[in-house]
Amino acid sequence: MATMAGEGLGVIDDGVIAAVDGRIIHVGSAADAPTFEADEVIGCNGRWITPGLIDCHTHLVHAGNRAQEFELRLAGASYEAIARAGGGILSTMRATRAASEAQLVGSAMRRLDALIAEGVTTVEIKSGYGLTCDDEIKMLRAARALGKERPVTIHTTFLGAHAVPPEYAGDSDGYIDLVCEDMLPAAAGLGLVDAVDAFCEGIGFSADQTGRVFGAARALGLPVKLHAEQLSNLNGARLAAEAGALSADHLEHLDTEGIAAMARAGTVATLLPGAYYFTRETRLPPIEGLRAAGVPIALATDCNPGTSPLTSILLVMNMGATLFRLTVEECLLGVTRHAARALGSSDETGTIEAGKSCDLAIWDIERPAELVYRMGHNPLHARIWKGL
Amino acid sequence: MATMAGEGLGVIDDGVIAAVDGRIIHVGSAADAPTFEADEVIGCNGRWITPGLIDCHTHLVHAGNRAQEFELRLAGASYEAIARAGGGILSTMRATRAASEAQLVGSAMRRLDALIAEGVTTVEIKSGYGLTCDDEIKMLRAARALGKERPVTIHTTFLGAHAVPPEYAGDSDGYIDLVCEDMLPAAAGLGLVDAVDAFCEGIGFSADQTGRVFGAARALGLPVKLHAEQLSNLNGARLAAEAGALSADHLEHLDTEGIAAMARAGTVATLLPGAYYFTRETRLPPIEGLRAAGVPIALATDCNPGTSPLTSILLVMNMGATLFRLTVEECLLGVTRHAARALGSSDETGTIEAGKSCDLAIWDIERPAELVYRMGHNPLHARIWKGL
Ligand SMILES: [Zn+2]
Ligand SMILES: [Zn+2]
Repeated sequence: MATMAGEGLGVIDDGVIAAVDGRIIHVGSAADAPTFEADEVIGCNGRWITPGLIDCHTHLVHAGNRAQEFELRLAGASYEAIARAGGGILSTMRATRAASEAQLVGSAMRRLDALIAEGVTTVEIKSGYGLTCDDEIKMLRAARALGKERPVTIHTTFLGAHAVPPEYAGDSDGYIDLVCEDMLPAAAGLGLVDAVDAFCEGIGFSADQTGRVFGAARALGLPVKLHAEQLSNLNGARLAAEAGALSADHLEHLDTEGIAAMARAGTVATLLPGAYYFTRETRLPPIEGLRAAGVPIALATDCNPGTSPLTSILLVMNMGATLFRLTVEECLLGVTRHAARALGSSDETGTIEAGKSCDLAIWDIERPAELVYRMGHNPLHARIWKGL
Repeated sequence: MATMAGEGLGVIDDGVIAAVDGRIIHVGSAADAPTFEADEVIGCNGRWITPGLIDCHTHLVHAGNRAQEFELRLAGASYEAIARAGGGILSTMRATRAASEAQLVGSAMRRLDALIAEGVTTVEIKSGYGLTCDDEIKMLRAARALGKERPVTIHTTFLGAHAVPPEYAGDSDGYIDLVCEDMLPAAAGLGLVDAVDAFCEGIGFSADQTGRVFGAARALGLPVKLHAEQLSNLNGARLAAEAGALSADHLEHLDTEGIAAMARAGTVATLLPGAYYFTRETRLPPIEGLRAAGVPIALATDCNPGTSPLTSILLVMNMGATLFRLTVEECLLGVTRHAARALGSSDETGTIEAGKSCDLAIWDIERPAELVYRMGHNPLHARIWKGL
């Protein structure tokens, strides 16, 4: 098995895992294991076991899709023509506002099931297509409901500051007032918010506005993370790190000061190669700098209808290796140990260690590198969530 | 449904397909349809029907994998170090020679099942990792056996001229003698060869040697195709077109003369975006030139352990659109109508038309573009092969 704890992949040959009530109580080699009186024994017949995989950055809950926009753009339509035809992020906002909570759960379930089929046991889901108090709460409720419908741990992230809705066109500060004073406190008061995120970008919100969102999160005792340095460098990662953020995500335009701030704060760099690929980005995130500074790197799908309609965590690893030249070890840690850290959930999951939830994936492979190497092939043999 | 016949995608709203003994006898809109006394009626409830998809270029039968080589390269190992560690195409040759026919069938079955799960009903499979008479025949027998084990049409392609085996190091002409005089006639005599292919490249075989292989194929009445212009321009596509080839494949270095020759001959351009992606190629095939000349474009996985360990025809379409900027229509025709033509099988499959095999895929989608737009999501509802 590859525990993802300790050095490298934490490989234990011929290993044994014991769990009680869904929690790991012992991990080690069979030769050294104490004798357990187990109610149930699952033999893996030489297969590999890893921690259940973690998708730590998704916009899984949304209505509609942007396949028509994709088709028009390939056929040569301009961005203006697409906007006139009702495309772009606001088209997803309109569809999401029009959908009921049950409809949002239903459409997201298919995407969630695709992730679960690849051994995913923990998924982060953001709001951010409602952009009204009620619609953001509806999205977060749908995310929570998915965790009741399926055997998977859901982390919710409030992303009210994703885009300026049409009602506030030209008044992004007014919208940030609403986010900080009404939307976030209301959603948090309902227990729907595990973390707070924002889109810090020229086409999103400024560093000042992002700082206000972080302040509102702090007042509620909620951890923060940030969409930062995707299209330009607004020093968002540094801002996030200085606010003690769990992660800064995307990071194609991250500079050395941002890297240093992240290293000091222990902020995870969550890279999203699906968005890089789908948008035909050519600027790579500063992988060498992140490595040299010891910043932990996570990988995630960024599943969203506009820039990453991707529901394969295995393909994310392949893209991390192929497009970003991450090593096999970096890719595997990026969807396990470091992804757990990006969710503030290192005590609970991400490695196979005593005390953590017994979230496992069992694979029909001869070596862990196969999980990264193949494209479009799913060797999952079985998945275990909380011991079951 | 999208019949892929006639103009564009050949869309028929509210359509009806009738089949007898696995063959389509009628296609049209429900309003105009005659009355059929059907033994079985399958309602599609508003879903989309397309022809069964076709993967027209694969090396699906092989033993071993190159995950370790992939891992070493990402960790910074040089090509020499990998060759010393036993990597490269010859490692696949050694593993394939060592495998029994049953073992080859078993390992390829998993890859074939991944394709079938995405609505594929026809797969081309090449030899080329045996490189002895017996081992090439073993590969082709394994390919034929797959077609008996699963409900799918298999086209076999003899690719003895894939690489020079170690026994003929420094004597590639001697190896081509063996290919033309012994291997190909023997395999063809057993009925194992539907078409003949070669790897025309600096690291493969010269245009002269390729011409000799084509001559041997012609003498046996077999159609030809060619791996051409992948890494350099040896005018392979022109050579292939002048030999009346079904397809020339890869084509990143194809020039305008090659395009003109293909257009004159009606040779299909089979593009392989998985190999382009996986090898981090940056030179695009000349899409505009192919379009302007009216050369039909097919897309395929090129499934092989060294440069395209890919078993998703849906992802191939996404890569065709994202990396090559093919339109949605071009991607869909590339895995249906034009892929059938690349196999010389246009009379049999590739479109939904009366007289053809009733090979269909039924999809849970609202528009065909969704098949190209999404990554890692399989909306197949049902697959029909020869009417069943
Ligand atoms: Zn995002
Ligand atoms: Zn090939």
